[in-house]
Amino acid sequence: MTRRYFHSDNEAGVAPEILAALARANEGMAHSYGADAITTRLTARFCEVFEKQVEVFPLVTGTAANSLAIAQLAPPCGAVYCHVEAHLNTDECGAPEFFADGAKLIGLDGEHARIDAATLDHTLRHAGALDVHECKPSVLSLSQATEHGTVYARGEVTELSRIAKSHGLRVHMDGARFANALVQASCTPAELTWKAGIDMLSFGATKNGAMMAEALVVFDAALAQELARRRKRAGHLLSKMRFVSAQLEAYLHDDLWLRCAKHANAAAQELGAGLARVEGVALLHPVEANEVFVRLPAHIANGLHAAGFGFHRWPRTDDCYRLVTAFDTPHEAVEELLATARELAPAR
Amino acid sequence: MTRRYFHSDNEAGVAPEILAALARANEGMAHSYGADAITTRLTARFCEVFEKQVEVFPLVTGTAANSLAIAQLAPPCGAVYCHVEAHLNTDECGAPEFFADGAKLIGLDGEHARIDAATLDHTLRHAGALDVHECKPSVLSLSQATEHGTVYARGEVTELSRIAKSHGLRVHMDGARFANALVQASCTPAELTWKAGIDMLSFGATKNGAMMAEALVVFDAALAQELARRRKRAGHLLSKMRFVSAQLEAYLHDDLWLRCAKHANAAAQELGAGLARVEGVALLHPVEANEVFVRLPAHIANGLHAAGFGFHRWPRTDDCYRLVTAFDTPHEAVEELLATARELAPAR
Amino acid sequence: MTRRYFHSDNEAGVAPEILAALARANEGMAHSYGADAITTRLTARFCEVFEKQVEVFPLVTGTAANSLAIAQLAPPCGAVYCHVEAHLNTDECGAPEFFADGAKLIGLDGEHARIDAATLDHTLRHAGALDVHECKPSVLSLSQATEHGTVYARGEVTELSRIAKSHGLRVHMDGARFANALVQASCTPAELTWKAGIDMLSFGATKNGAMMAEALVVFDAALAQELARRRKRAGHLLSKMRFVSAQLEAYLHDDLWLRCAKHANAAAQELGAGLARVEGVALLHPVEANEVFVRLPAHIANGLHAAGFGFHRWPRTDDCYRLVTAFDTPHEAVEELLATARELAPAR
Amino acid sequence: MTRRYFHSDNEAGVAPEILAALARANEGMAHSYGADAITTRLTARFCEVFEKQVEVFPLVTGTAANSLAIAQLAPPCGAVYCHVEAHLNTDECGAPEFFADGAKLIGLDGEHARIDAATLDHTLRHAGALDVHECKPSVLSLSQATEHGTVYARGEVTELSRIAKSHGLRVHMDGARFANALVQASCTPAELTWKAGIDMLSFGATKNGAMMAEALVVFDAALAQELARRRKRAGHLLSKMRFVSAQLEAYLHDDLWLRCAKHANAAAQELGAGLARVEGVALLHPVEANEVFVRLPAHIANGLHAAGFGFHRWPRTDDCYRLVTAFDTPHEAVEELLATARELAPAR
Repeated sequence: MTRRYFHSDNEAGVAPEILAALARANEGMAHSYGADAITTRLTARFCEVFEKQVEVFPLVTGTAANSLAIAQLAPPCGAVYCHVEAHLNTDECGAPEFFADGAKLIGLDGEHARIDAATLDHTLRHAGALDVHECKPSVLSLSQATEHGTVYARGEVTELSRIAKSHGLRVHMDGARFANALVQASCTPAELTWKAGIDMLSFGATKNGAMMAEALVVFDAALAQELARRRKRAGHLLSKMRFVSAQLEAYLHDDLWLRCAKHANAAAQELGAGLARVEGVALLHPVEANEVFVRLPAHIANGLHAAGFGFHRWPRTDDCYRLVTAFDTPHEAVEELLATARELAPAR
Repeated sequence: MTRRYFHSDNEAGVAPEILAALARANEGMAHSYGADAITTRLTARFCEVFEKQVEVFPLVTGTAANSLAIAQLAPPCGAVYCHVEAHLNTDECGAPEFFADGAKLIGLDGEHARIDAATLDHTLRHAGALDVHECKPSVLSLSQATEHGTVYARGEVTELSRIAKSHGLRVHMDGARFANALVQASCTPAELTWKAGIDMLSFGATKNGAMMAEALVVFDAALAQELARRRKRAGHLLSKMRFVSAQLEAYLHDDLWLRCAKHANAAAQELGAGLARVEGVALLHPVEANEVFVRLPAHIANGLHAAGFGFHRWPRTDDCYRLVTAFDTPHEAVEELLATARELAPAR
Repeated sequence: MTRRYFHSDNEAGVAPEILAALARANEGMAHSYGADAITTRLTARFCEVFEKQVEVFPLVTGTAANSLAIAQLAPPCGAVYCHVEAHLNTDECGAPEFFADGAKLIGLDGEHARIDAATLDHTLRHAGALDVHECKPSVLSLSQATEHGTVYARGEVTELSRIAKSHGLRVHMDGARFANALVQASCTPAELTWKAGIDMLSFGATKNGAMMAEALVVFDAALAQELARRRKRAGHLLSKMRFVSAQLEAYLHDDLWLRCAKHANAAAQELGAGLARVEGVALLHPVEANEVFVRLPAHIANGLHAAGFGFHRWPRTDDCYRLVTAFDTPHEAVEELLATARELAPAR
Repeated sequence: MTRRYFHSDNEAGVAPEILAALARANEGMAHSYGADAITTRLTARFCEVFEKQVEVFPLVTGTAANSLAIAQLAPPCGAVYCHVEAHLNTDECGAPEFFADGAKLIGLDGEHARIDAATLDHTLRHAGALDVHECKPSVLSLSQATEHGTVYARGEVTELSRIAKSHGLRVHMDGARFANALVQASCTPAELTWKAGIDMLSFGATKNGAMMAEALVVFDAALAQELARRRKRAGHLLSKMRFVSAQLEAYLHDDLWLRCAKHANAAAQELGAGLARVEGVALLHPVEANEVFVRLPAHIANGLHAAGFGFHRWPRTDDCYRLVTAFDTPHEAVEELLATARELAPAR
């Protein structure tokens, strides 16, 4: 029955290819703290994938990746701009502020959790009026995909980065669902990141089939100074790091990451389109990654729950719900949910 | 000419009574770090003024008072609610977040920079939905007077505190202009603070005639635990503390603080009422303390500046201005400004 | 050849039982962030093992476990006492200070990296003389096994805790090699921890056969307040936590942890005893866990390295070396190393 | 009787010239937060005094000056070397660690609280062996005068700075008693600081006749980046800053600071020399500034206390005492103390 869970892609398991890679990584001894052969290969692989010399810091949580990035890019008295609904701002219990020694997150508006370029421009033009009384505008963080399951087009990333950089900011991308965004954006990893102005990427894999594996990818080595020490002092330097690197290596091998994301996105598309056709149901945001946000009448929401389908009401709302698909969501689970929803709805 | 400055009450000097007290405090040696007789007397005096056994921490800036209070009341992963325009949130360069090890300030809306009770209630009812992913709702901070020169009535403070406490929060009052608010609120210091639910007060004196003197007043000794060490490690334990305490003692002596505030408030009243009668000028907020917020036509604003009157345009606006009066603002300065404004306006 | 590595127990792999548990944990979906069935069972298991109601926080690094513990037990202006050579003090890049918002570690002396009771007593008797100018004595942290591979006897832990508690301190145990210490100490887990005065234990598993699994075990629920949020904001709340919990469950199952530790300790005993008999070699510390510290003549050190044996020179020394055994160190590797050493030594 | 206090130079009052300067600064209004004319003049004056373009940050405590300097010079994962007895390390309740986001202070040995050059060299040669597991060696902090009232000669400062810089460190000088050290060192302010390799100086005035006035002097503008914001977010940007600047201006005017320091040092010389001649009394450190450290027999210590002389026993000792002279210590107070001590001692 658990295949009926649409709570979160974190409830899915691990792709078999990744589990197999862990077993392989266990053969023989290996140097610790990232001095192993797998981690070395992994960096080379990331350079290929992003068509650039990059620095890679394997990690186990997206919170760590995001927070290390923010801490690295923002001075202690820095202001960090993100969407007001960004995970960074709402769901990380102040982790970025903690890692960045009290840096201040400033939430920006924008439809479907995408920062509006005009809003960013207006905000940055007026920032700094208070001189040292105000935190120094330092970082823009974009979530890709966003907290509402939408995706910035490549041109949108480029434009937002351009505005930010014209005001001296650095740009971070929270890619907890980067693969899901990438397959939607139909461009290369390079095009969606550093070629569009991104300085650091939190590259997520856990939600898309890994066990516990993220990577902080730094596109400009100058920005990685002392980042290795920051990782250590945050308790995020794993002694047997090869077991994180092995997950990421398998994830990037043979397009596994893209196949996983395509599957999840397709399932979400089907789910969203199907729900939108049910009487009384309204899609709240375009379905562009692996999340579906809908307004559900109470009897449908309750009926689905009663039928064993798991999904969460969105915090601070009464009737909005999020359904998340994963790399392994069975087609039948989507079909059964849609069939149940249709049965619960009154005939048109 | 400098008497024509309405930029800020920080540009005023020091009341003669306070300067005299500094000279008196200089007679003979005295124990350091607050172990002197003046500091001891000062605490007793505060207990009288607030009709309660309180703990008093003399300080030299409002930023320190506010930030120590927030750090003391909020756990490291705490959420602190204040008005979105509160000084705490906009003008202290992240000091509260720094002192409180990354605690998160959450800005609330409300007309004239006063937090709306319904907004607070709604926010706190929905807070906590994200469990540990969300900062723990911990503190409400009220500015009295507010950043827009308005004042919470005693009943409003009581109601906001009641809501906060029903959700387990502590309540802080930023009283950088406490005296100005108090004389407006027409009640006792006790009634406007601990009797209305306030746990800690940043008691300001600098803006109202002191040289550099504020006090953090703690109404519940249990909340002051290790606060003395927090003050020290923030570099705010002055070795010759008697010279801060002496300012506060003189400030509280013979109602000097209330007389100073009444003077400043009256000057602001006159200034606000006079400006409101000038063609093209609009008051933006009720004048309830010593600040006047107006929308000025460009020719009036420019003309006043050209005539030597100093005042600031409000950040992030095009035509809104703030004029601040002080304990020693000369009546003639107000009259001259009004006369000049009237001359600049077209005849009605 | 890598079986010839004695650099660190972190270079060993993962016990087959633990790898199998990860595969089993991958069956089906499961709730995220620790709301899964495995994590629930794990807490119950820890309660059994420690014969007490405990709170358990699965983690992936010892640095995180130690630093969260210190942050939880020490106020921001707290002083934390540990051995001057403790891992906490020398090898964590300031992580405890970072997590604990600047708390101060104070290194104590003692032979073989064990804190001397008289030194602790003397230090604490004189602490506090500087009042608020000094950090508040708050925590004692004991490493078990110590940084020099020695073990505190149960009575020693009890005595040090007693002294610490008589001065109002809390007591933490850094058990990165807790299993190795436990099998040496010949007592129950409870006897070596809470019954001996320990308040929190960093329970290590990674070095003893897990992939990435540690647990912060809290013996008094009152001390765990907001610890879940601290974990989150440090980026240490894993979304697919079941894969950490599964490691720990397998580790504790059927005495795997004790068997692994006994194997490693026995290998170290053999290695230490054998090396001590080689001409020119001197044991630096008693071998009580899975580490051997020796002074080696240059020709022996170099000869062993040339023969492919891996081990590190101890930092800040010229001729002192550490050899570490692990849960899976082959008997032959130890014998080969000893044979090589004997060949390198001049005949007696 | 209070003229009999030798507890601390913090118990002295304010030089009349400085009090007068405060009264003068009170004439008219002035821009706030350091935009006033006095602060502008002050920077120019510091440039003259130090024969260099410097940046000056007026402050009110030495703790703030030191901690801001350390925070500015050390990265968050930095190691800061100072004498193990340095005020920074023992008396500031962890302030440097707090300001510097958990940077680690490492205490070095050396006779009479002066860091030994060989020790520094040896320490820095071995630092870094643990790579990212170790804090990054970043700052050397020298106290001038030292915590034991001794003074580094100009050549000693130069040599220590040279060693530090050869390892990539920056050098800070804690000059809480800089004037006292300077008059002893018989060289120019420039020679004792930036010409000897100092990057930042905590320039103290409070202990030497000011009311509450210190300055952080930065010799290389590149090192002052965002320091103004750091000051603000620590609550150390005073709104009526002119009243701090006025103290410093008067302090530097007409050699007041040097005259004050010479007086205090001469009094200490007399006190030290006199006490050394008393039977049973031993000088513990050379008297090179305004502090005298002596071992006193119990009957002399008690007898002096009974006679109304105030001075402290040195923390963590049984029979060592510190006596401090100040800019205004009356000659008779010294003579009376010496006479009393002689009476208390048995005839030789």
